[in-house]
Amino acid sequence: MIRIAVDGMGGDFAPRAIVKGAEQACREYGVQIDLVGDEKAIKPFVTNGHGIEIHHSPVSVDMKESPSSALRKKRDSSMNRAFELTRDGGSQAVVTAGNSGAAMAFAIFTLGRIKGVDRPAIATLHPNVKGGLTLLLDAGGNVDCKPFHLAQFALMGEACAKALFDIEAPRVGILSNGSEETKGNEVTREAQALVKELQVNYVGYVEGTDIYVGTSDVVVTDGFVGNVAVKISEGVAELLLSFFKKTVTSSIKTKVGYLLLREGLTKLAKVMDYAEIGGAPLLGVNGTCIICHGKSNEKAIKNAIGMAKRFVEQDMYGSMNEKMQRYESLQKIKEKQ
Amino acid sequence: MIRIAVDGMGGDFAPRAIVKGAEQACREYGVQIDLVGDEKAIKPFVTNGHGIEIHHSPVSVDMKESPSSALRKKRDSSMNRAFELTRDGGSQAVVTAGNSGAAMAFAIFTLGRIKGVDRPAIATLHPNVKGGLTLLLDAGGNVDCKPFHLAQFALMGEACAKALFDIEAPRVGILSNGSEETKGNEVTREAQALVKELQVNYVGYVEGTDIYVGTSDVVVTDGFVGNVAVKISEGVAELLLSFFKKTVTSSIKTKVGYLLLREGLTKLAKVMDYAEIGGAPLLGVNGTCIICHGKSNEKAIKNAIGMAKRFVEQDMYGSMNEKMQRYESLQKIKEKQ
Repeated sequence: MIRIAVDGMGGDFAPRAIVKGAEQACREYGVQIDLVGDEKAIKPFVTNGHGIEIHHSPVSVDMKESPSSALRKKRDSSMNRAFELTRDGGSQAVVTAGNSGAAMAFAIFTLGRIKGVDRPAIATLHPNVKGGLTLLLDAGGNVDCKPFHLAQFALMGEACAKALFDIEAPRVGILSNGSEETKGNEVTREAQALVKELQVNYVGYVEGTDIYVGTSDVVVTDGFVGNVAVKISEGVAELLLSFFKKTVTSSIKTKVGYLLLREGLTKLAKVMDYAEIGGAPLLGVNGTCIICHGKSNEKAIKNAIGMAKRFVEQDMYGSMNEKMQRYESLQKIKEKQ
Repeated sequence: MIRIAVDGMGGDFAPRAIVKGAEQACREYGVQIDLVGDEKAIKPFVTNGHGIEIHHSPVSVDMKESPSSALRKKRDSSMNRAFELTRDGGSQAVVTAGNSGAAMAFAIFTLGRIKGVDRPAIATLHPNVKGGLTLLLDAGGNVDCKPFHLAQFALMGEACAKALFDIEAPRVGILSNGSEETKGNEVTREAQALVKELQVNYVGYVEGTDIYVGTSDVVVTDGFVGNVAVKISEGVAELLLSFFKKTVTSSIKTKVGYLLLREGLTKLAKVMDYAEIGGAPLLGVNGTCIICHGKSNEKAIKNAIGMAKRFVEQDMYGSMNEKMQRYESLQKIKEKQ
């Protein structure tokens, strides 16, 4: 049975949402949960405890704490304990909704990076008009990337998309300001030359629109642009929602109209709901790790655990590791750049 | 009376949409239009010709033509004639829905750059939840920007926002991957240091979400990120629209609901409609120039002419020029970078 370590104290709605989500995941996916956190705080929310083992760990990382401070002072935290359980082989994956900077720091510190990966990356999932999902990386703050970093992201994203979407050769694109070869900036142009040499189904430059069109399964970019991309998406969705709410509440006629549409709109909201996706995989560390939004509710936690289980079953880490070793050449390129 | 040169042959719906839009603008804004293009093609669409002077110019720039080819072979085109009329003082501004790369090339070639501006930029306008608009620049393809380029964009964007929004001290932000001072990449960090030295109401780093929140009036970024930002916004809006259409057409109940909401939704669509805004000002050249979307309909053309009129009335070009001269120091910085 697959065992997943869950940080019981991370996130705005911890420990309640975490415990409830973990219990649901046990029932739905048949996984074992190593729930790490303050036993006294956790226990009141446990219904029957079936499939859940509590690992008492009273220290927790603050949501506002800097990663470097967490790394210095909070090695005995519930978050890092979850990583240690995974490193030591008790669990096979980590799920945390805690401070994402600290989670990235502990993942690198405790699990270590895959050989050949210079910078682990966070991948986010975006719904597209084809009804599928597009994987975007890096959304984790690796700014000022070199071309070989982007090439590594392409390999990491490909392995992740393979396991997640169950497709043999995920289409990989590099985010650019136009799809023509002549577009891009210095970094994307050099990155493109590198990626073309890899055994990757590279489909060329993709544009911002393409993330939501689903032109490629994987969209590669640096952490600066990736962050802007994710935040703009949120911004536009919020803008439209705010205008829609104003429209709906403007008269009795529109309110009735809304009531008739409500059921369908709930489905629409579901497509846009991050909780349906669960979390964002952290790629490039020695193990499986899903980082959830701080605002995660129990559904998000449950789905993140489901995602982690899928990665373990598909041995996503193993195939990523294998692929990275095949391209040690990227290391030689690095020395030149 | 303000005279505006309009490229009658540029855009997917030229010359019809251009002529109709120009006529509407004459009526609504009381401007004079120098309509440049093939007389035979234009004339059938002219209703009474009041306020419109046709300048016969049969050559037009192809929508797919490369800017460099246009610059070499199409100096006698309707597009460049419009710029020449403005350079020579017959008209006070140019509006074109033609090939935007060629428009930028001819603007720089014929009008020239403002002294102190290294790279003219295209500014796009985005609706925000406050009911206002946010000006984003550069959306025009200036990739690989240096910090002093971004500082120049800040000055150019400020002058434009002043004229457009009629506010004394527009808030200027630099787009980044977080609002904290420690965020950003190498270029934004240096750019931030430069902008802080300018007499600009600088509000710090802004995030992708802020464009639609309206945290600042002006958002400065390079042309690579600017393009991604604009395209992602389009992508999310299209995704939501496609899901909404599916929802609405799924049953009789939802169809009735939609009918009741339709009036309100038309208003919502209006907010998101680029035609309401008209076009994107090209900033940093010696003159006023509005570049419209290739798909511009007559409303977009009319509104673009209205925007051009506003810039002329407010002497946007004059104050931008004055401000750029005040910061010749940015030129000295340039030499170091």
